Amino acid sequence: MLPYTPGEQPPPGKFIKLNTNENPYPPAESVVAAIKNAASGPLNRYPDPTATLFRRAAAETLGLPGPDWILAGNGSDEILTILVRGFVGEGQKLRLPYPSYILYRTLADIQGAKWEQVPFLDGWHLPSVFGEGDRDLRLVLLPNPNSPSGTVVPPDQVERLAASLPCPLVVDEAYADFAEFNCLDLVRKHENILVTRTLSKSYGLAGIRFGFLVAQPSLIAKLANIKDSYNCDYLATIAATAAISAQDWLADVIAKIKATRSRTESRLREMGFDVTPSQANFVWCTHPSGRHEQLHEYLKKNQILVRYMNFPDWGDGIRISIGTDEQTEACMMMIERYLQSL
Amino acid sequence: MLPYTPGEQPPPGKFIKLNTNENPYPPAESVVAAIKNAASGPLNRYPDPTATLFRRAAAETLGLPGPDWILAGNGSDEILTILVRGFVGEGQKLRLPYPSYILYRTLADIQGAKWEQVPFLDGWHLPSVFGEGDRDLRLVLLPNPNSPSGTVVPPDQVERLAASLPCPLVVDEAYADFAEFNCLDLVRKHENILVTRTLSKSYGLAGIRFGFLVAQPSLIAKLANIKDSYNCDYLATIAATAAISAQDWLADVIAKIKATRSRTESRLREMGFDVTPSQANFVWCTHPSGRHEQLHEYLKKNQILVRYMNFPDWGDGIRISIGTDEQTEACMMMIERYLQSL
Repeated sequence: MLPYTPGEQPPPGKFIKLNTNENPYPPAESVVAAIKNAASGPLNRYPDPTATLFRRAAAETLGLPGPDWILAGNGSDEILTILVRGFVGEGQKLRLPYPSYILYRTLADIQGAKWEQVPFLDGWHLPSVFGEGDRDLRLVLLPNPNSPSGTVVPPDQVERLAASLPCPLVVDEAYADFAEFNCLDLVRKHENILVTRTLSKSYGLAGIRFGFLVAQPSLIAKLANIKDSYNCDYLATIAATAAISAQDWLADVIAKIKATRSRTESRLREMGFDVTPSQANFVWCTHPSGRHEQLHEYLKKNQILVRYMNFPDWGDGIRISIGTDEQTEACMMMIERYLQSL
Repeated sequence: MLPYTPGEQPPPGKFIKLNTNENPYPPAESVVAAIKNAASGPLNRYPDPTATLFRRAAAETLGLPGPDWILAGNGSDEILTILVRGFVGEGQKLRLPYPSYILYRTLADIQGAKWEQVPFLDGWHLPSVFGEGDRDLRLVLLPNPNSPSGTVVPPDQVERLAASLPCPLVVDEAYADFAEFNCLDLVRKHENILVTRTLSKSYGLAGIRFGFLVAQPSLIAKLANIKDSYNCDYLATIAATAAISAQDWLADVIAKIKATRSRTESRLREMGFDVTPSQANFVWCTHPSGRHEQLHEYLKKNQILVRYMNFPDWGDGIRISIGTDEQTEACMMMIERYLQSL
């Protein structure tokens, strides 16, 4: 079994970090204030096992029927772990598109389960086989927007896929706040469509481990039996509740990141890159020179971290997280310098 | 599968909570200060995947050879989950003593594994069969001090059990800071002795989810592949690091809790209870009247929560967490009043 390897985490401050799709902006001031206040709270007491405060606020913000449509977890990583443990037994199978988030494969491996990758078609479309049942299939995972591409499978296609599948379809919406579409409304209509969200990306809280699942209440209740009793830290729950209530802050930050994303895509195209139009907080690009790994190394030597990704039988490229304008421009200038040296 | 049911969590402030073995005292001031300071830290960045700051401080405090002997997790609950997922496959078996911490059974059920309970002998001694191998056995779990009894299996017996077992023996030391013995030194000598610890009890940080495993480095490295990449929250890691560095605070609080525990045991005996001498931050007691469930209900009506526990084929009783002197005395007075009403 090959463990999942997340992006590098260098000592803070020394690098411009555009490799793990973090938000370059600090969280809302109301979040920081809430944490400071909670530091004097009942830390010696076990937290609410189901993060009710958060679930109430999130249900209201997202227009869900109620808090019982939400399962909160220690990052959406924990939610994904709970889903795989809950649905996929040893020898059973989960499905994911390719190339996408390889953590799903690691989760299957840990569980002693099998995984099956369905390649994207040209233009990052999904073939209909992605929605076909088979005997051992127990769970299908779709990152939407996908990584590394930043592309979105439209909700109407997600709906069609779910209708033909004999098992739950989890739409991993870690990046949905940066996209034009999301599948939240589909959860009410289809028992087998589940949506995961995280506070790590759009809300600027990767340090605070908090993510959640949106699904029909009967499923939420079953999955809650699998999670650790007290999986949500008291301070994290307070922070996440403040964050999801700060929708004005969110709208501002997303607008900034989208504007920087648009400039980044233009700059990369001007430099000859093939850039996939992104609906996430990163862009995926390839250069006709093919010197992606060398570019990654060059940037790293110059204190800029981006993600070099190589997908066997598919190809390689560079994934660049959207930073502040200054960070992103520094990265673009360094890329320019590298290309001039070729 | 029956999910694990933790103790009740009423709205804060309304009850005297002596039911979930929390520390009645707030954490060290240095912990609160560290959290307030960290609230302005890099919350938008992913945390250190292995909580290195904490592991360094803990290795030094506990006299371990190095941080690579420690795996940090989101509470020792997560550590236990990782251990069961790592060692016990579907259809395989874990062993626990009885009566003890029934969460272990739930973890086996979630995994599709089997569990086997070995009853304690009179006086809370373990029979030698607890150390016997069998074909499907993959993991043995021993809470030490045990709950509900608060008793300790001495390290020399733990060593003998481990020597005869064909699999890892996990000594769950959630309450070890309140005991006269612990098994930390045995980890260096025996590859199959593993120790779990938590910051929830003695350090007064149940709200902050943080626990850890001590084991030989080769085992730690393997288990790290199973955990979620970023399982330790940034603020929790900061808080836990400050806590484990506050050993003077810890010694004071433990001395206070032990003194209250001693007075509680005397008071209960004076009221006719059979009290098991405790090495934890709770006491287990039974009354000749047998009216344990009724006593629990009476206390609850009077805003005092203790834990009523009923173990099939074994018996029932009351587990009372040690609170402050005031909280514990209020509980004793209410018990006295109940007994007078019989």
